[in-house]
Amino acid sequence: MSSTDKPGDTEYRPTSSTPAQAAAGVDYFKFDVILRFLLFAASLVSVVVIVTGNETKFLPLPRPAKFRYSPAFVYFVAALSVAGLYSIITTLASLYAIKNPALKAKLLLYFILWDVLILGIIASATGTAGGVAYVGLKGNKHVNWGKICNVYDKFCRHVGASVAVALFGSIVTVVLIWLSAYSLHSRVPK
Amino acid sequence: MSSTDKPGDTEYRPTSSTPAQAAAGVDYFKFDVILRFLLFAASLVSVVVIVTGNETKFLPLPRPAKFRYSPAFVYFVAALSVAGLYSIITTLASLYAIKNPALKAKLLLYFILWDVLILGIIASATGTAGGVAYVGLKGNKHVNWGKICNVYDKFCRHVGASVAVALFGSIVTVVLIWLSAYSLHSRVPK
Repeated sequence: MSSTDKPGDTEYRPTSSTPAQAAAGVDYFKFDVILRFLLFAASLVSVVVIVTGNETKFLPLPRPAKFRYSPAFVYFVAALSVAGLYSIITTLASLYAIKNPALKAKLLLYFILWDVLILGIIASATGTAGGVAYVGLKGNKHVNWGKICNVYDKFCRHVGASVAVALFGSIVTVVLIWLSAYSLHSRVPK
Repeated sequence: MSSTDKPGDTEYRPTSSTPAQAAAGVDYFKFDVILRFLLFAASLVSVVVIVTGNETKFLPLPRPAKFRYSPAFVYFVAALSVAGLYSIITTLASLYAIKNPALKAKLLLYFILWDVLILGIIASATGTAGGVAYVGLKGNKHVNWGKICNVYDKFCRHVGASVAVALFGSIVTVVLIWLSAYSLHSRVPK
């Protein structure tokens, strides 16, 4: 009988339970931290491998091959450095959100907005470096661009490995955005 | 007194109003349709411009320049064709969602998941074609790759314009994902 005297009390419970239930959602922040750390590792490895690929051949004069001789590889190194720095900052933000769950919905939105930009940067840089590296590997007889990987084998191995790791980094970024989007969607009331 | 006899009735109203209010969110589906049409236009223009760039010079023998001579440009045309096809399908899906608002939250999630993949494809293709086009424009004296744009001016103009339009398409895709993410976030209860 006391429940009928206080209708406000019976009304309050469902309203409070619904957003709380929805706001819980599916929580992937631990995966998020792991993936962001993977992105950082991929960016670091990628930059280190291409930078250490410098090679000098004596043909018979010394002719060095360096990543900074190609604007495509310079852009690649710059883009992956940005991605590495970004992944450090967002790993910290993600760790902070685990301790402050109230921030999570807002942070998921910001993660998607920025991750998309970083994906654009990494993907285009991987494409740029990969495209030029492919010309170096195969050459292009239509325009008389000779292949160079038969001469600079170490340089080409490093560039190839670096591009492959950056491709892995792009895939990690795609999965990161998928996780955030899925996590955000699970908070929307059905 | 009849309301106290049916507590289920008083409980029902707040629960139904909360998700309805949240599910309304901010609705950007009209912008979504416009942007997806823009992406379609950009993809189409980009493919048509690079395909029509074929040029033959007599030096003195006939030496044609065609996009299909470069694997980078072939990948570019394939990627942009996929993006064009995808944008037609999703424009229709977006129009369908305007008439069926119940689908919107689910569709926003799917849009983000697929748009991210398409962004990766367009951005990497733009980078690949742009990187090779830049070598064609400037050459690279370190590896004796001569510039070719002083010979094939029309071909290079077409490639450059096509890459620029594809870059615009990438930016449109980024904005599309931003819109979907923001719209999804606005449906999450505060």
